[in-house]
Amino acid sequence: MTNSKQKTYHIAVIAGDGIGKEIVPQAQAVLEKVTRGKADIRYEDFDLGAERYLRDGAVLPDEDLDRLKQQDAILLGAIGDPRIKAGILERGLLLKMRFELDQYVNLRPSKLYKGVVSPLADPGDIDFVVVREGTEGLYAGAGGSIRRGTPQEVATEVSINTAYGAERVIRYAFQLAMKRRRRLTLVHKKNVLTNAGDMWQRLVDQVGQEYPDVEREYLHIDASTIFMVTEPSRFDVIVTDNLFGDILTDEAGAVVGGVGYSASGCINASGTYPSMFEPIHGSAPDIAGKGIANPTAAILSAGMLLDHLGFEEEAASIERAVEDDIERSGSTHRSTEQIGRDILARL
Amino acid sequence: MTNSKQKTYHIAVIAGDGIGKEIVPQAQAVLEKVTRGKADIRYEDFDLGAERYLRDGAVLPDEDLDRLKQQDAILLGAIGDPRIKAGILERGLLLKMRFELDQYVNLRPSKLYKGVVSPLADPGDIDFVVVREGTEGLYAGAGGSIRRGTPQEVATEVSINTAYGAERVIRYAFQLAMKRRRRLTLVHKKNVLTNAGDMWQRLVDQVGQEYPDVEREYLHIDASTIFMVTEPSRFDVIVTDNLFGDILTDEAGAVVGGVGYSASGCINASGTYPSMFEPIHGSAPDIAGKGIANPTAAILSAGMLLDHLGFEEEAASIERAVEDDIERSGSTHRSTEQIGRDILARL
Ligand SMILES: CC(C)[C@H](C(=O)O)[C@@H](O)C(=O)O
Ligand SMILES: CC(C)[C@H](C(=O)O)[C@@H](O)C(=O)O
Repeated sequence: MTNSKQKTYHIAVIAGDGIGKEIVPQAQAVLEKVTRGKADIRYEDFDLGAERYLRDGAVLPDEDLDRLKQQDAILLGAIGDPRIKAGILERGLLLKMRFELDQYVNLRPSKLYKGVVSPLADPGDIDFVVVREGTEGLYAGAGGSIRRGTPQEVATEVSINTAYGAERVIRYAFQLAMKRRRRLTLVHKKNVLTNAGDMWQRLVDQVGQEYPDVEREYLHIDASTIFMVTEPSRFDVIVTDNLFGDILTDEAGAVVGGVGYSASGCINASGTYPSMFEPIHGSAPDIAGKGIANPTAAILSAGMLLDHLGFEEEAASIERAVEDDIERSGSTHRSTEQIGRDILARL
Repeated sequence: MTNSKQKTYHIAVIAGDGIGKEIVPQAQAVLEKVTRGKADIRYEDFDLGAERYLRDGAVLPDEDLDRLKQQDAILLGAIGDPRIKAGILERGLLLKMRFELDQYVNLRPSKLYKGVVSPLADPGDIDFVVVREGTEGLYAGAGGSIRRGTPQEVATEVSINTAYGAERVIRYAFQLAMKRRRRLTLVHKKNVLTNAGDMWQRLVDQVGQEYPDVEREYLHIDASTIFMVTEPSRFDVIVTDNLFGDILTDEAGAVVGGVGYSASGCINASGTYPSMFEPIHGSAPDIAGKGIANPTAAILSAGMLLDHLGFEEEAASIERAVEDDIERSGSTHRSTEQIGRDILARL
């Protein structure tokens, strides 16, 4: 029964490749359940990813991109297939969406849930968020090569960083820190990448003036990978560039017991285009099709999606259900569907 | 008593900053002891680092660089001082030496010694070497900014990669793998850095043809930071670019119980200029001057220096002495001098 007062939301679903197809339905089931009677969610499936590309050579046609832009949010499974040359789907689809939809905040929370076994002997209380810039840096796709395939080949990759791009994500990170433990760590490599690093540091200092209650620190990316292993509990909000954020959040995922628990949001915080929510893990071709992929990260991503649409309570209930589920059965081997059912049952 | 048959070696000593000054003398004492009667080592101290810069503004004058080029090898403590803006000493001194002396193989072994406590609950048998490219990539210093300090600032960092530069370090890595467990992992981010990544992959495949007994694998840098925590024993030889190598070896240092045990060699494998040996840790200003810095990484670096000069047996004896020392007293708190004495006593 549809409630006439219910608002309608249009959610694009890109299940994508490999385990993406298996975990996304679980996330949708959770979305359905927690919004029943509160929102009318209309899904539109997008046929994007490896199969589409292998079928008709299309990666992200303008038409699909235009339709994506009409949605309220995007739920993504995973993109990537070993049959396809590295970069084609990543640059042409995943990163193209992040860039074209101006998803400049790549939000990646890391939390060690009770019941999850960390590879660290003494992990402590891990609960931080990496605010990764999502639309520039080395991901800009600026670079090229000359004399390809010869001994004289030169290949370049250009990291493009703007005050505009860094400032807005830094501001977002400070705002987030204010809602959390008020501690912000800038991660960069300013002793080597002196141009970009110096700009990031100046902008953090400058925006930081507006948030005098937020304690600031700076760490080099190399030192951060050490602390991530020796003292991850020190982190609250980390703000960093696109590549360093990519690296650090995978390490963080490992430290909190596996990227199977790590959700993320590619957020257009100015609201000009839809934001996208996806697990930070990949398409895992090695276990695809076996029905054993853990849908937890996808379900948590659906929670972030709801939070983004304003359903804070419902989002919180998803996180609680996941926490409960992990605490009770986190270490038991369960099928994708079983984990989905168990989480649903706790809602 | 000098033996007339003894060859003379000229070693430049750059103790540098912070704890560098405290650990280098311990490394020299070890060098002295194991080469006694076998080599005539002449040290030349170079006044380079923060103090020199603060005194006369000099970072690495041509004259010093020319004198460095005359040496057989360089023993370095640590460079870096919080009073000096990030980048000045790193780019102007440390990286300038690596580049000007064409130290293209940055060799970084990681081994979990018995008696050292890893932060991992189940570290397994860790024993691998990272072969980090040392003279190009994002360290090239190519980049700049426009409209600095304005909201329209744009800062770039350019990663310059050549087939010449990658091929020679890849070849070195394969040769090393042949002497070890014959397993080589290329770490890059070829799904995003498609120009440089594709070149590295092609060169690894190409050089790999000459080493059919070496098993090859590829890992993205982000995935590598996961395996470094979940399964570091899988690695034998890792070959990677300058920045990824920087990041991965710090994480590796943490995993084997702290960068206090991690030595490195900046090696000019073609022998045109001297190679340089240094701990991978920094100048640690927080503990400098207290006499509590661990000289183990510096002592192991001296061992790598000897190995490089052809004193394989002596180098091996240093490593054994360090292993023994760690196994017996690794976890006890000892002063810098005490650790130095204890290792000397085992030689
Ligand atoms: C697949 C890849 C392009 C992507 C990235 O590098 O951002 C992934 O690693 C991630 O972290 O979302
Ligand atoms: C000090 C710094 C420039 C250096 C580097 O980035 O190479 C250091 O981190 C290292 O790993 O030797």
